[in-house]
Amino acid sequence: MTGADRLLQTARASGVDVCFANPGTTEMPLVAALDRTPEIRAVLGLFEGVCTGAADGYARMAGRPALALLHLGPGFANGIANLHNARRAGTPMLVVVGDHATWHAAADAPLASDIVSLANPVSGWVRSVRRAEDVAADTAAALEAAGSPPGQVATLIVPADCQWETADGAPVPVRASRPSAVSGERIDAAVRALRAGDAALLVGGPALGARGLRAAARIRAACGARLLHDAFVARLEHGAQVPELERIPYFPEQAAQALGGLRTLLLAGTRDPVAFFGYPGGRSRIAPDTCARLGLAAPHEDAVGALEALADALGAPAAVAIPERARPSPPSGTLDVATLGQALAALQPENAIVVDEGLTSSAAWFAASAASAPHTVLGLTGGAIGQGLPCAVGAALACPDRRVIALQADGSGLFTLQALWTMAREQLDVVTIVCANRSYRILQVEAARAGIAAPGPATRALSDLTRPELDWTTLATGLGVPAVRVDRAEALVAALSRALATPGPTLVEALL
Amino acid sequence: MTGADRLLQTARASGVDVCFANPGTTEMPLVAALDRTPEIRAVLGLFEGVCTGAADGYARMAGRPALALLHLGPGFANGIANLHNARRAGTPMLVVVGDHATWHAAADAPLASDIVSLANPVSGWVRSVRRAEDVAADTAAALEAAGSPPGQVATLIVPADCQWETADGAPVPVRASRPSAVSGERIDAAVRALRAGDAALLVGGPALGARGLRAAARIRAACGARLLHDAFVARLEHGAQVPELERIPYFPEQAAQALGGLRTLLLAGTRDPVAFFGYPGGRSRIAPDTCARLGLAAPHEDAVGALEALADALGAPAAVAIPERARPSPPSGTLDVATLGQALAALQPENAIVVDEGLTSSAAWFAASAASAPHTVLGLTGGAIGQGLPCAVGAALACPDRRVIALQADGSGLFTLQALWTMAREQLDVVTIVCANRSYRILQVEAARAGIAAPGPATRALSDLTRPELDWTTLATGLGVPAVRVDRAEALVAALSRALATPGPTLVEALL
Repeated sequence: MTGADRLLQTARASGVDVCFANPGTTEMPLVAALDRTPEIRAVLGLFEGVCTGAADGYARMAGRPALALLHLGPGFANGIANLHNARRAGTPMLVVVGDHATWHAAADAPLASDIVSLANPVSGWVRSVRRAEDVAADTAAALEAAGSPPGQVATLIVPADCQWETADGAPVPVRASRPSAVSGERIDAAVRALRAGDAALLVGGPALGARGLRAAARIRAACGARLLHDAFVARLEHGAQVPELERIPYFPEQAAQALGGLRTLLLAGTRDPVAFFGYPGGRSRIAPDTCARLGLAAPHEDAVGALEALADALGAPAAVAIPERARPSPPSGTLDVATLGQALAALQPENAIVVDEGLTSSAAWFAASAASAPHTVLGLTGGAIGQGLPCAVGAALACPDRRVIALQADGSGLFTLQALWTMAREQLDVVTIVCANRSYRILQVEAARAGIAAPGPATRALSDLTRPELDWTTLATGLGVPAVRVDRAEALVAALSRALATPGPTLVEALL
Repeated sequence: MTGADRLLQTARASGVDVCFANPGTTEMPLVAALDRTPEIRAVLGLFEGVCTGAADGYARMAGRPALALLHLGPGFANGIANLHNARRAGTPMLVVVGDHATWHAAADAPLASDIVSLANPVSGWVRSVRRAEDVAADTAAALEAAGSPPGQVATLIVPADCQWETADGAPVPVRASRPSAVSGERIDAAVRALRAGDAALLVGGPALGARGLRAAARIRAACGARLLHDAFVARLEHGAQVPELERIPYFPEQAAQALGGLRTLLLAGTRDPVAFFGYPGGRSRIAPDTCARLGLAAPHEDAVGALEALADALGAPAAVAIPERARPSPPSGTLDVATLGQALAALQPENAIVVDEGLTSSAAWFAASAASAPHTVLGLTGGAIGQGLPCAVGAALACPDRRVIALQADGSGLFTLQALWTMAREQLDVVTIVCANRSYRILQVEAARAGIAAPGPATRALSDLTRPELDWTTLATGLGVPAVRVDRAEALVAALSRALATPGPTLVEALL
């Protein structure tokens, strides 16, 4: 076996079954080894950000890491933005980067660069392989690091000669790790804080799954604490029959208002919330300084178990009834963010996975979909745009029996539109809704917030996506995805209904 | 004035007149300052790799830096691949990255990351601004670093509060630096080596301009030395009436053959050539070990002056006649890389700028165009694909009176296809020729070189761009660029003729 074979053998034994790849010459031995490892499906992304975003979406849904295979420093760099999102999501991921042969490193060939320096900001673990015989052990170490709770990006740099040289040896097992349990003292402290009143519980990470949400709802029923989640979440179970939490608003002044008056903020699986951006005269922390932060479970700890223990300690009921809510009905009339949100909330099927990179266009959908059939939401955890379409690719490959809906802002989507081609090649059941306001709307909002009443020529040039108009319908067609444009709510409802009933990918460009 | 105003004031005084930007919230004060600085044209790229590649192309043609304005770590990361190419080209560039307000850094907000670690591998100079009152001096230092011969990427990280706070003060001048002169001793040593015979002169950097090439031709006339240039060059004057050099082949075994038997390799403005990649049983250096390397001028030194001094010292003629060569005639028949190259070589107008990212499809054009009207070639210096279309954007903005031709491989072009939209918005005179072989052909070549007779399913999946076929004609239309597809040489000739006679951008998809 070659070093490349050993890498794939180790990954396969650990459960890796998909490789999102855009390889080059320094990864050819790994490509050849993929030919000998049919259990790992090779999926081509036509840009590395597609590969890393897809690996993120895959792992968020499958609960186990995918492999991303990238080419040298520049190929890795193209994947960084979505690795940044994965880092913030706590996603387990194995990123393998080919490098020049060890003996060629000193030549500083044109494509050489400091991959470690590029990898460190987005990786919890980075290692360069030194010898072919180390590949299996290094891969196992990378997978263990990737799976270390809550999950992280592990980047393994593999020189080409370490891939092509022979490296026989026994398989190297990968040890799985579990989140550490929370002590009874911390549960007791949480009980006391909640019973004192004016408390909220901020839930994040795996605690936003069905079990965690049920436990959180029991806690609310027992003591009246408010339940919150961050504005951007890695994965959230949502919809009718799922306990609903309050979403912390995006802008810091609204967020501070939402958290005003709290005496205690209990943190379960997430951190003390901070402003997404700092503004003149603003501050970083969102909760008032007079509010005590109490860590129930850090992101690497067992937040779900802690919530269940806390519910029990509070003497909470074993189950909490969730009020029935009428599902939104399909809208008609003007197409705007409200009717767009209502249309999707009305039509999205049970068990859908909604990848929400709608940004300024998706808040109405999120509110309305609390009454939709139960579904899973994947959010833009790190704020690095261009995550939605790739993440949808990965989610669809992880869950072929579920319908994936990419709710996608138009400007952001263009960063990684190449993902549509992978949807077409793999015939993934993804419906993409492009929220086509043809602007970087958030910049226009920020200009208005900064008191700029009449934006000048540069502000207009840098925030306007007309001249020429972005034509997503044509772009999707060029990448092999059937597409339709709508400009009325009825037309969106009709197009969405058709798309959701059709296998394979479709794109609906909704003119807002 | 704000810190942002001071930054732009300093850049403007130093000659910066274009800003290739994709800003976000942390750059809004700079966007507002651009509104107050109409002398700097704000050009939007819909992906950061467009901005950095365009700034590279602009500086290669204008000879002075452009400004690239990017958003935080992920935005910078999206621009790294083309910064890597700029680094290898020795391009002067000022990259400004907004960051969180200084007081917000400790909050580790979702979009925060280690920008310095990302910037170091592609930047010759990196600095984070600490206070608004330092912005002007820091900008001046960045511009001085960018202009340090041969030119480099200078990355200035500017926290949002340093942009928005008031920072009055006197303008800070930017000192220009010149390449250092080469000593007479080195010229004398070169004379001795050339007179000993079996010598070649490898010319690079600014020495591939008209003056350097004339001096090199005089040296060849005086002593018979061979004249070489690297496979990938930042900027080369080329065509009829321009002295022709030998291009070092791409694959190392062919390159080694081309340089076999040399006793001396004289280096003028470039480094000892190395293999682009290392292969099993291969080596890094291309020239034989028995060949002496003699540095005439390092990349930061005055290679043009050294070549002229060397020609004089050799008693070379003052001018060298260049043999007349018949321009290629337009081809007919099958469309393949040979007829494609011949068609472009036949039709490209005098003074064209050809951005060559044709990769496996452009060698025939390069050979044929030695007899074309004089033109400038911009090459893929760092091997990071997705440089061609952005570079064409920048070259067109730098030289509005010249026709730009992007000779573009299809798979590589898709990495930064968003550049087409900027061509449409700015109505740039760029003709893009997509070499549509619908594959990552280089991977297929590498598989064959590795002795893989029958590629397996993974190799096929990862190198084939059909299923679905990449449809560049439709993609260009969706981004606002008129496009046409051709599959015969006559049709290419007709389409190219029309495109070259039409103002504004056009794309021709040539099916190979």
